[in-house]
Order: sequence, then C-alpha cells, then structure tokens
Amino acid sequence: MGILRMGYIHTRVTDLAEAKNHYANTLGLYETHAEDGKVWYKGWDEWDHHSVVLEEGGVGVVKYGFKVQYLEDIDRIEKKAQDFGAKTERFSAGEVAEVGDGLRVYPPSGHVFEIYHEMTSWGLEVGTHNPEAFPRHLVGVGVPGLDHSLLTCEDVGLMEKFLAEVFDFYTAEKVMSSLDDDADTLGVWMTPSNSIHQLAVIGGPQGKLHHFAFQLDDWAEVLRAADLFTMDDVSKDVGPTRHGITRGKTVYFFDPAGNRNEVFAGGYMAYPDRPCIIWTADQLGKGIFYHDRELNERFTTVLT
Amino acid sequence: MGILRMGYIHTRVTDLAEAKNHYANTLGLYETHAEDGKVWYKGWDEWDHHSVVLEEGGVGVVKYGFKVQYLEDIDRIEKKAQDFGAKTERFSAGEVAEVGDGLRVYPPSGHVFEIYHEMTSWGLEVGTHNPEAFPRHLVGVGVPGLDHSLLTCEDVGLMEKFLAEVFDFYTAEKVMSSLDDDADTLGVWMTPSNSIHQLAVIGGPQGKLHHFAFQLDDWAEVLRAADLFTMDDVSKDVGPTRHGITRGKTVYFFDPAGNRNEVFAGGYMAYPDRPCIIWTADQLGKGIFYHDRELNERFTTVLT
Amino acid sequence: MGILRMGYIHTRVTDLAEAKNHYANTLGLYETHAEDGKVWYKGWDEWDHHSVVLEEGGVGVVKYGFKVQYLEDIDRIEKKAQDFGAKTERFSAGEVAEVGDGLRVYPPSGHVFEIYHEMTSWGLEVGTHNPEAFPRHLVGVGVPGLDHSLLTCEDVGLMEKFLAEVFDFYTAEKVMSSLDDDADTLGVWMTPSNSIHQLAVIGGPQGKLHHFAFQLDDWAEVLRAADLFTMDDVSKDVGPTRHGITRGKTVYFFDPAGNRNEVFAGGYMAYPDRPCIIWTADQLGKGIFYHDRELNERFTTVLT
Amino acid sequence: MGILRMGYIHTRVTDLAEAKNHYANTLGLYETHAEDGKVWYKGWDEWDHHSVVLEEGGVGVVKYGFKVQYLEDIDRIEKKAQDFGAKTERFSAGEVAEVGDGLRVYPPSGHVFEIYHEMTSWGLEVGTHNPEAFPRHLVGVGVPGLDHSLLTCEDVGLMEKFLAEVFDFYTAEKVMSSLDDDADTLGVWMTPSNSIHQLAVIGGPQGKLHHFAFQLDDWAEVLRAADLFTMDDVSKDVGPTRHGITRGKTVYFFDPAGNRNEVFAGGYMAYPDRPCIIWTADQLGKGIFYHDRELNERFTTVLT
Repeated sequence: MGILRMGYIHTRVTDLAEAKNHYANTLGLYETHAEDGKVWYKGWDEWDHHSVVLEEGGVGVVKYGFKVQYLEDIDRIEKKAQDFGAKTERFSAGEVAEVGDGLRVYPPSGHVFEIYHEMTSWGLEVGTHNPEAFPRHLVGVGVPGLDHSLLTCEDVGLMEKFLAEVFDFYTAEKVMSSLDDDADTLGVWMTPSNSIHQLAVIGGPQGKLHHFAFQLDDWAEVLRAADLFTMDDVSKDVGPTRHGITRGKTVYFFDPAGNRNEVFAGGYMAYPDRPCIIWTADQLGKGIFYHDRELNERFTTVLT
Repeated sequence: MGILRMGYIHTRVTDLAEAKNHYANTLGLYETHAEDGKVWYKGWDEWDHHSVVLEEGGVGVVKYGFKVQYLEDIDRIEKKAQDFGAKTERFSAGEVAEVGDGLRVYPPSGHVFEIYHEMTSWGLEVGTHNPEAFPRHLVGVGVPGLDHSLLTCEDVGLMEKFLAEVFDFYTAEKVMSSLDDDADTLGVWMTPSNSIHQLAVIGGPQGKLHHFAFQLDDWAEVLRAADLFTMDDVSKDVGPTRHGITRGKTVYFFDPAGNRNEVFAGGYMAYPDRPCIIWTADQLGKGIFYHDRELNERFTTVLT
Repeated sequence: MGILRMGYIHTRVTDLAEAKNHYANTLGLYETHAEDGKVWYKGWDEWDHHSVVLEEGGVGVVKYGFKVQYLEDIDRIEKKAQDFGAKTERFSAGEVAEVGDGLRVYPPSGHVFEIYHEMTSWGLEVGTHNPEAFPRHLVGVGVPGLDHSLLTCEDVGLMEKFLAEVFDFYTAEKVMSSLDDDADTLGVWMTPSNSIHQLAVIGGPQGKLHHFAFQLDDWAEVLRAADLFTMDDVSKDVGPTRHGITRGKTVYFFDPAGNRNEVFAGGYMAYPDRPCIIWTADQLGKGIFYHDRELNERFTTVLT
Repeated sequence: MGILRMGYIHTRVTDLAEAKNHYANTLGLYETHAEDGKVWYKGWDEWDHHSVVLEEGGVGVVKYGFKVQYLEDIDRIEKKAQDFGAKTERFSAGEVAEVGDGLRVYPPSGHVFEIYHEMTSWGLEVGTHNPEAFPRHLVGVGVPGLDHSLLTCEDVGLMEKFLAEVFDFYTAEKVMSSLDDDADTLGVWMTPSNSIHQLAVIGGPQGKLHHFAFQLDDWAEVLRAADLFTMDDVSKDVGPTRHGITRGKTVYFFDPAGNRNEVFAGGYMAYPDRPCIIWTADQLGKGIFYHDRELNERFTTVLT
C-alpha cells in the first residue's frame, strides 16, 4: 500500500538516433513503442510497458513516474501533497501513453512526478511459466530494468520532508554537514521499499538530473558493462568501483546527449527499522566513491 | 505497515558445542548471548539482538519470529488470525528473551509463529557513521544475516491462504501440479516485501523444517562458502548452483545436528504487481536446481 | 623449445549437425572449414586455423595434436619416442589439413599423437592492433580456446614415463594409491608449460577419452556457461564446482554424441620446480570434486 | 630450460614497521625471516623462502632475482650477457640470503638482476598432500604470490633486445609510437613463459621502479582487495579496472614508502607463437586503463 517504486523516467535527448543506439544496442533495453520523436523502453525483467521514455530535444528529465499498489493510494497521496502545499493535477487514462488515471505532483525540488496505478502490461521477456534465468539472447549489457535516480534541488531537507510525508519514503542513508544537532542535510538516499534507494537527492540547482541507474546482478556484470562501454565508445564517468553509500557496485557513464547513467549492482536490503546511516561531509568522498575516497569535479558539476 | 521480515528462527540442535562451532566459526554469526543450553546469534549486517536461537535437544524448528513495522500491526494480525480460525496467544515483553510484547500464532502448517514489534537493539557491526563496506575481520563465511526459510506442511494451499490473508504475504513463485484450473499447489514462495521470499512452503509432514537460509552477496561468495564447508568438514547437500525458482545462487548444507542450512545470493526484487511465476511439476527439478534439472532424493525426504 | 601445448583434438561425433549446433551455437567456437563430414573450429582467442576437428561417425578421440616451438623439436621427439620404443611415422605438409610437416607417435596409452610445428594462421578474433578485451559479439558461452584433455589407459605409470621422457612433460599433481613407497600411480596431471595441465591420464581402457576442456576466464563465466547449458538442453554431468586437483572451477557436460566436455577456469600457474601435489586414493573424491568430496559413478565409467 | 620466472624483488622502504604492516597485515604475505633492518616474505602459494625482500632506507628497487630451471642455465646466461656487453659477476651460495650460487647481471636499464637456481625451500602453506584450495585463515588480501614488475629505462628497445637475447624472453605485447616501420618502441611486456608478463619496460629514468605486482585469482578478489585498501588507509592509485594490455584486472596502490604495488588477476596465457599485440601511442590510454581510456599524470611520473 503506497508507492511501489520509481516506475519510469522520461528524459530528453539531443539526438534520438544516437540515443536509441545507446539505450537499445549498448544497454540492451527493449523498444516497446516509438512515435513522434519519442521512444519507449523496458528492461528484460520488467513487465510493464515501459520504464524509460526518451524525447528528442534538449537534455535532462521531463518527469518521473511512481507506481502505487492500489488505486486508492492516488487519493491519499493527493491529499497529503495538498496538505504539504504542493501543487497537484489529475490526468486521465491515455493522457500519458500506456498509463491509466493518475496524479501529477510538483514537489519542492522543481521536478514533475506522476503517480499512477496502471500501465499497459507487456510481460517478462522470460515469460511466467517455467522461465529461464535470463533471456538466451541478450543485447549488449542487457540491463534487467530501471533502478533509481539522483536529482538535485536547492533545499534537500525540504525535499526529504516531502518524500517522507507525501510519499511515505524513508531515509536509508544521508550525508550531513557534521554530526552536530543543527547540521545541514546535504544528501538523502530514500526508498518506500527494501530497494536501497529509489530516489536520492543532493543539493544543487532546482529540477536537475544527476543520473538515473539501471540494475545489474553483480560485480562480474559491472565489469562486463564497463568493457562494453569501451567497445561502444560510451563516455564513461567513474568506475567500476563501489559506493560507500549503499555499498553498491557501479559504473557512471553518459548517454550521447550527456545525461548521466549508472549501472548499479548490489547494495543491502533496506528496512524502515534499520538504523539510518549517517555520512559526514568530511567523508563524502569515501561515501560516494569508496575506493578513490575523493570526488572528482564532474560528479558535482555535470547535471542535465 | 505489516510484517517487515522473518526476524528470527529458533531451532533445536543435538549438541550445542558442535552447533556453536558451525554457526559461529564456519558461518561467522556473532554470539550475542548464551544461557541455559541456548545461544543467540546475529549476522554482522543485522541490528537487532538476534536472528538465530539455538537450543540443545533434538532437531527442527521451535518457532519463527516475524517483526512488524508498527505496534498496531500486532492487533491487526491477531484479528485476522482469529478470523482465519487460527489459535493465538499474547506474550509480554521479556517472556521471549530480548523481545517486546507480542503475539503467538499457530498457523495451519503446525509451526509456531511469533509476531513482535520490538527487539533489543544491538547495532550494525560496521556502525552507522561513515561505515566500512563490511567488517574488516570477518570469521569464516561471514554471513551478513538471516534470509528465509522453507517449511513443510500437509496442505500447501491452505498455508498459502493463511500467509496471504493473515500475514499479507504474496506469492512470488509457485509450483503447480499442472497448468489446469484445478491443479494442486505443490509449493509457494511468499514474501511481504521485495525480498524474493521470506517463507516458502512445500508439501510434507506438518511442522517440519526443510531449511533456513543466510544471505550472501554474490556468486563469488557462494564459491568461497562452499570451499570453507569443505575445509571445515561441513556436510554439504547440493551446490554451488542456481535455483530456477527465484534465480538465487545457492549451497545447501547441514548443521552438525542435521538441520539443513542454505547460503543464498541474488534473486530478483519481488513486487506484488509482478506476474507470479508458475512452475509445473514436470519442471520442478529445473525449478529447484536450475543446472542439474533434477531433484535428488535427499531434497524431498530429509527434514528436521 | 619443445612442446608448446595441446594444439588440437580430433574427435568423432555421431551426428555432425547436432554437434555443430553444440560446438558453434552453444560453446561459440568459430568454424574455419567444413568438408566431407568434417568440421574445423577455433576459439576466439586462438590464432591457428583450428583446435577442434569433428568427424562424423562414432564417438571418442581420433587423435591429438601437439604443437612444438621449433621445427627441430620434431626430430628430437622422434628420436626420444624411438628410444622409448614407441612407434612413429612422419607425415608431410597437407596430409593433415592445414598442418605442416609432422610426426605421428603412438604412445603406450593406445592413442594417436601428432607433433607439428606449423599450422595455417587464422588470427585472433580481436586482431593484434589495439585489440578489445574480447569480441563484441560472442555467441553462446564464447569459449576463448581449447584447454586440456583427460584420457584413460591401462598403465598410468608407463604413460607418465612416456610423457616425461619423450614429451618433456612434468607432473603437476598426481593421485597415488597411498603414500607408501610402492604405491600405484592412479592418475597424473601433466604439462610442458605453466598451464596447470595439458594432458591428464587416469586408469581405464586403452585409447579412451574421458573429456576435453575449454578455457573460461573465471567463476562468473562458469555460472553463465552452466545457465546456457540449461537453456540449450545440453546434457550436464557435474558442476558448477571446484576441483581439488588444480583448484580449477568447472562444469562437465556432454556433447550430443556423448563425448564429455568441460569448461575450466582458474587453476594456478604450474612450474617444474613447484612441489608435485600428491592426492591419495582415499581423498580422490575431494581431489576431483572439492565440494561434493565424492565421485559419482558416471565420472569413472562414462568414456568415449 | 632457462629462466622460470621473476623469483624475488628486493626493495627499499622508508619505514620498516609501516612497511611490515602493509605487506603482512594488508597484503597477507608470510614473513619468513627478519634481520638487520630487513624482512623476507613469501605468498601462501609460493614454495621458495621468499619473493619479496624489504630493506629499510629510501625507496625503489635494489635488485630483482630470476630463478632458472637448471644450474647450467646460469653459465649460458653469463655467456650471453657477456656477448651482449653486459657486466656480470658471480656470487656464492649464502652471499644472498637463502640463495645458492648465482650470477649478478647489469642490464642496460640500470637495474641489478640476480640469476639463481636454488633457494631454501619453505613449502606451500596448504602442503603437498591432499591440499585445501587455499589456507583456511588468510590475513587481509591474502595474495598467493609475486607476479611481475614494470621498470623504466632510457632505451626501451635496447632493454627489449637484452631480455630477448640474454634472458630468452619474448614480447607478448608492445607499445609503438606508430605502425610505421621506423616507429619507436615505447613499452614492452615480456615473459620467458606462459605468464603474460614477468617484466615490463617503459621509457623513463634509468634504474627506476614503476610497480611490482601480486597475483589475485579473479575480479571478485580485486574488489575485495580494493575494499580492504580503503579500510586499511592504503594509498590507492588506480582501479579497480582492466588493462587493455594483457587484459588483466587490476588495482594500483602505494606502499607506505611510496613504492607502487599492484594486485593483478587474469590476463591470457602467453605463447611464443602467439601474435605479438601492438598498441599505438594514440591508444596508450586504452592500453593501460581499458575503461578510462586515458592515463593520469601519476602513472607516468611517480616512480621510485
């Protein structure tokens, strides 16, 4: 009951042909629809119609979709959003392609969030009867599905409050300016579920995208992904390495438009009763890149 | 809201000294208490006081504990259990060592389930401030924590109904005698969360334990565990291999008393809106042991 | 100077079409030639024309090829073979397809060995200038190349003597009936190089093939191979597991004709000054299958 | 017949206590002797008395040892070295601790090479009878042994000629200024065996050490090593990543004195008949760091 997960991300890309090559041939997403300068994708282990929408023209994130378990969850979130003071608007089935009746919410981060309960079902690529462990003929990296996103906004603490109060997310890990009582919240890794993070927030300009991530199974797949990025001339940012925050194994890279992507494996199961992990600003480098123990400048400055 | 996870398993062992050697020195659990022929353990990545309780005398499972998110969840489950026709009884803080007020429920499988909201906090071994990725000096396999259990009972379908209606579990995967409408349910893999399974049920005698499992991070750790089992003369059952059901990577083995254990890595994130995977009896071998594609006799006959 | 490696194995298969599907589509070997009921294969990381030759009609090994570093090595081996009392015969360039002038030797095991210095060059699939780490589009398991073979004969000690004296192989590991001075040699793992074994010999019928193996990089690739064998309905024998002998990680399986194959990863670098590892018959199970610690009957009885 | 491998490296360290902590507690080498400001180490999978010698006072490499298969190889190398014009001198058993009679050679790179046939035997940590796959209680990273070294000198082409003519090494991979006939040789990766490299040479000051490397089994161990380096505050240089050259997986890091170390896993089996891989200067970044595809300044400037 409540939000199940980040169900889709809709992003802009400067050149759709280049982007399709990247997301389909290198990452191995399955195209489920294309129309009017847009293309819809899903991973092989996803069952809904899409988890990624690309739209030609510019860069950055147009909007995020969050799927709820029950139709009534939409009403509840609408009420909470309005109580919080966030603008909302309803949309009807079909207004958002392949998506049922839903709610658009404008959180304090300057992004657009869509809440929905229904999306056209597409089915798992391995089927549901006596399935194989993965599709026999994967393309490229063969990502199973979307994982999470990191966005920026001016007031991280306010956005954490919004996600906690309106979306019932909890904070699995956070970065504080210090351990003092009046310390500032510099970043939060939040989730409504056992996924270690569905949405993370760090300080920066309003409405910007830091990255969105695809799942991988393990460290061996992270290496193979990094190898394929070299073969396919994908612009790599950082990795393979481990995050201190979440413990996940990772490669950051850029799509041809310059949007930062990630492949992410591992990380522990989050629970609301698990102690929240606190990182302090002086250890942020280790928190983000566990092996390098320092940030590179790109990490904090390149946003779309 | 509702059950977070299987929080503990309390089992009997024939010889406590041998069992301690197995669970502490080979598996690497941390002993948090010992008293009167009992010992309490937690994994390094668990924060509550214990997830495993051993009691000298016999074999098999004494009872399972399930932790709920809110105190009110206990009332709700009590009501539902009574509606279902299951016997329940309340227990007070301290009656179960280190556990707060709770509810004992007697499901149709012949087992004993304890529902609780509070357990004495012990803390993560890596701490909560700028933690390392894992403890620098792990012992043996170094399992981070308890994962799930498989139990047997005479009426799998009835037990599935109990777990769905009373515990709000859903079925991620199941084994059916066939794809016919009137097919029998031979096994169910159920969860209240994104964990691919917290409790699985297959047909067999009432009140028996098939195995309980500890988490591992990935396939590399599964190999290392199997290697250590050989070095420590642990009685191995099956593996390393992959399950078709859940896709998890696994080794089955026995503790010195003969209770079956498992180390389990991977498996996808479960979601209540994900299509339930159906295995048919003729493919059960592949479902259980994806590589061998056949069961060995021990798997279905050795229970404690 | 001397034998570089086992360069090829020439085997019989009952049905060439089925065999081609197995070796090309599942294992991912590259076909370099086909003619008259025969097909020639190489792995992506091999540079000579072929390492596997299949010939329709029956099962088992027709002959093995061993490549020498210098042309003069052939003369030297001929002399030593004759001194040993082994029958030899010369063959001219072209008699063996794509192979230069060479020597056929009949070792005491009842097999046929061909010694050669030249084979038509085919080239690495990744090329030799600024190569990628592996081909971008591998098929199936994508084995890089042939690794080693295990054969049977009646007198293991005599065959070890032949390989040591005539081929300058040394014994990296061996299985003895006991640690007594007069113990029998039950098996030997021998090599002319740092490869942990190029040819292993165990007791059994003359002239038989136990298995031949393909290289894999690591334990992650061993899992993926086992997964693909399930998807492609390959008859699996044993694994994934580790050998005690050589420490290699392995899956044994059968080609459609019933010849046993292996995928093999790891194992340490052998050196002639490294102490020879001795396994005793009572620990043979652990030596062969480190995790199971016991042999299955198939391992010792199914030969081709 | 000839050089088996680089058997030891003797280096200087500024502070022996710090160095011992690094090589013994973090890397897990076994101390076999200590005396007069020196300490001798071996890895768990090495059988000779030592592979690393540390000497307090300064940084950089004092000398390298190369073990030959036969005593006569020393005479042969002496003759060839003198023919090449290199200065040589004999040393007697015991002059170099735990080493038998040998030959000191002064190659054109400005380093000191010792050729020896005998070293006091210490034995494998797992023994030679029915051994376990690795020691049950490894310390830290638990490196099995020394792998290779990269040194610098002014004339790479001349040093390649020396290693080829005097040591019978061959070049597995090399970096050329271009593909033109008169291109300069910028770096060579050379070996006398199937080890992908025992000694690599790049242009730079005479007599300097770029790094020496320890073996690891696979990519999973590379991650664990990188994790432990963070926990133990080891100064990391680059990685985890893959090399284009050799395909090996790697982490570069520094000992407390500032000598660069590496942990290295994988890489293919080298053969003298395998085509030599040529990298061109414009692709050097990809050759060294396959994922980043660019060098950092430290890589070419920090030497000891």
